[in-house]
Amino acid sequence: MDSNLLKSLIIPTKTKIVMLIMDGLGGLPRQPGGKTELETAHTPNLDKLAKRSSLGLTIPVAPGITPGSGPGHLAIFGYDPLHYEIGRGAMEALGVDFELDRDDLAARGNYCTVDSEGRITDRRAGRISTDANQELSSLLLSIKIDGAEVFIKPIKEHRFAFILRAPGLHDSLSETDPQITGVPPRPVCAFDLKSEKAAILVNQFINSAQKALANKQPANMILLRGFAKLPILPTFQDKFGLKAAAIAINGMYRGVARLVGMQVLDVNGQTLNDEFTTMEKYWDDYDFFYLHFKKTDTFGELGDFDGKVKAIEEVDGLLPRLITLKPDVIIIGGDHSSPSILKSHSWHPVPVLIYSPFVCPDEIAEFGERACNRGSLGTISATNIMPIALANASRIIKYGA
Amino acid sequence: MDSNLLKSLIIPTKTKIVMLIMDGLGGLPRQPGGKTELETAHTPNLDKLAKRSSLGLTIPVAPGITPGSGPGHLAIFGYDPLHYEIGRGAMEALGVDFELDRDDLAARGNYCTVDSEGRITDRRAGRISTDANQELSSLLLSIKIDGAEVFIKPIKEHRFAFILRAPGLHDSLSETDPQITGVPPRPVCAFDLKSEKAAILVNQFINSAQKALANKQPANMILLRGFAKLPILPTFQDKFGLKAAAIAINGMYRGVARLVGMQVLDVNGQTLNDEFTTMEKYWDDYDFFYLHFKKTDTFGELGDFDGKVKAIEEVDGLLPRLITLKPDVIIIGGDHSSPSILKSHSWHPVPVLIYSPFVCPDEIAEFGERACNRGSLGTISATNIMPIALANASRIIKYGA
Repeated sequence: MDSNLLKSLIIPTKTKIVMLIMDGLGGLPRQPGGKTELETAHTPNLDKLAKRSSLGLTIPVAPGITPGSGPGHLAIFGYDPLHYEIGRGAMEALGVDFELDRDDLAARGNYCTVDSEGRITDRRAGRISTDANQELSSLLLSIKIDGAEVFIKPIKEHRFAFILRAPGLHDSLSETDPQITGVPPRPVCAFDLKSEKAAILVNQFINSAQKALANKQPANMILLRGFAKLPILPTFQDKFGLKAAAIAINGMYRGVARLVGMQVLDVNGQTLNDEFTTMEKYWDDYDFFYLHFKKTDTFGELGDFDGKVKAIEEVDGLLPRLITLKPDVIIIGGDHSSPSILKSHSWHPVPVLIYSPFVCPDEIAEFGERACNRGSLGTISATNIMPIALANASRIIKYGA
Repeated sequence: MDSNLLKSLIIPTKTKIVMLIMDGLGGLPRQPGGKTELETAHTPNLDKLAKRSSLGLTIPVAPGITPGSGPGHLAIFGYDPLHYEIGRGAMEALGVDFELDRDDLAARGNYCTVDSEGRITDRRAGRISTDANQELSSLLLSIKIDGAEVFIKPIKEHRFAFILRAPGLHDSLSETDPQITGVPPRPVCAFDLKSEKAAILVNQFINSAQKALANKQPANMILLRGFAKLPILPTFQDKFGLKAAAIAINGMYRGVARLVGMQVLDVNGQTLNDEFTTMEKYWDDYDFFYLHFKKTDTFGELGDFDGKVKAIEEVDGLLPRLITLKPDVIIIGGDHSSPSILKSHSWHPVPVLIYSPFVCPDEIAEFGERACNRGSLGTISATNIMPIALANASRIIKYGA
């Protein structure tokens, strides 16, 4: 649907929408003929809510396409993930909860080793310790570039996020990592005229980094790839007329929420229980709450079927706290599937449930992949969920006379 | 689907298609756990037909979007309602069964009151009686505009349809209604060069109207808004190779049918029974019959659950008359949903049934929202119904070798 059309039909009102995202929710049976993680989980509260809801399955990007966390979230937030791309460098910076600015150019960094002639000997410097990473990163942080600020955020082992902040940077840039050893890192080249400023500044930084790291251990050089600025997206307020809050622990999800203009709330703790406490505290201040639950994906990616089942049961146990708040519309779904047997994200459509007093309930008293496949929402693009939720929240007027 | 593709595959044949539209058909349970209007209704004939049909749910415009009658009908007729827009003025004129011509510019009119300085004191003139409206309208009808014809069609209370007929009119025009009191009506401004002729003629009419109504009671001025010409659409004959007839009582539906090139037949009476009599009379003369039944929507909008149930039962009772004619394809559906509990049109997908000897029957012996959700058509765009009906009528040849 044309986003201007939707925007022209949006009206303000007092209704509240809660979107609870279980990351990597969709799964697969552990063995042929068996049940999925969600079907295995004992979820009396979800099942009860499902009976009063419309069920369906969401396709985040396109049939057969496995989404990353960025596209998966953009889609369920109602943004076409093929139109708005969050580059790898930007995702890396968001992942460490760095508050990326519109002036910022970000990249994924690796510490590596080079020989005396500058040829790469190990692209990951033997996966150095995170401690060594932090020590080397503090060296890099002391590098000064005229007219720009540089931020280095150590991640795990040999990885770090690189952020260059200056006005007028563009991100059509080649990578320095040649992906092989025995050759020197490449200089950054601009693919277009307007990206030349960025190429010059990044190369200047790399030269300084080479000097700063020379003779250092256990790594003596860096590689940068995935240069990206943040895409510019219409905000939730612009697009849907919603004052939106995000409640998430992990930086990447906080970052994607910030990108669509949500207010990212502080959570005092690390659990969904703590997230619910935050939502209760700010309940009167927002129209829309996005809550993110990571563990379903974590266990899925670890291949831990039982762990994922327990994670889902944890959400189910806390559901009454959400119901008590009496939101007008509840959306429970995922950004993508992460079946334990695949130990990774997958392309499978993701179970979703929409509750409001105005849905025509499917009367399927179960929340699971096969139950959702029988639901009245059908198997639809994830980008349709927000318009349907807005309609149920009485926030869209009639189209045409 | 690309409309040129479909057109290139259409072949002429003798088969007949009947499309029976129950306006606002889709509904919601009166109370949680209950049945919808359609599920509540005792419909042995519809249920029997359903068992031999393919069932599904149609989305008129897009998920979450509540359609007006214009977009709802265009969609079920197979026209993309986001591509072809029928402006508010044109819908108003169609609603009073005015035969809008391609040269006509239409608007919604209000009788209003202004003070001695011309400032609006009541935008609806205290909702004057329809009798007073008719008297004032006959005054306006006497106004002459050089090079143009003017038509004034009184509606209810303070409302009338205004139609200006002249060659070369365009409808990018501002409205005269400022939507507030205490200020004078605005003159009409053209948003583009080609609409200037229309702006001049309309302003000329408004000035004459002001003089004609000065010192009159209970209204002494008019407001015009929603200026619109009819969109130009390919006809049913062009698009689908069908000689099509429309059987409807209410002007708006007769108008939309005329817009897509259907022959609008006269009905001797006001009931569906009378419409069936008309269909029988002209049975041999057309390939396609569109029948419109208004009461389901009327009761839905009134919030009269039981009234809507009875209206559906009225249709069911007459169904044998349709079956007896042995149409090759029968489509029974709606232009949009109008749940009684919402007292308005809504965004909910609409039950639909397609019968032909060549459908793979779903063997669901029930016509209702939840039954249709299990049907083999799935939840699909309403614009897909016509191609599926044409296929079942052996009117589409194979695509590609």
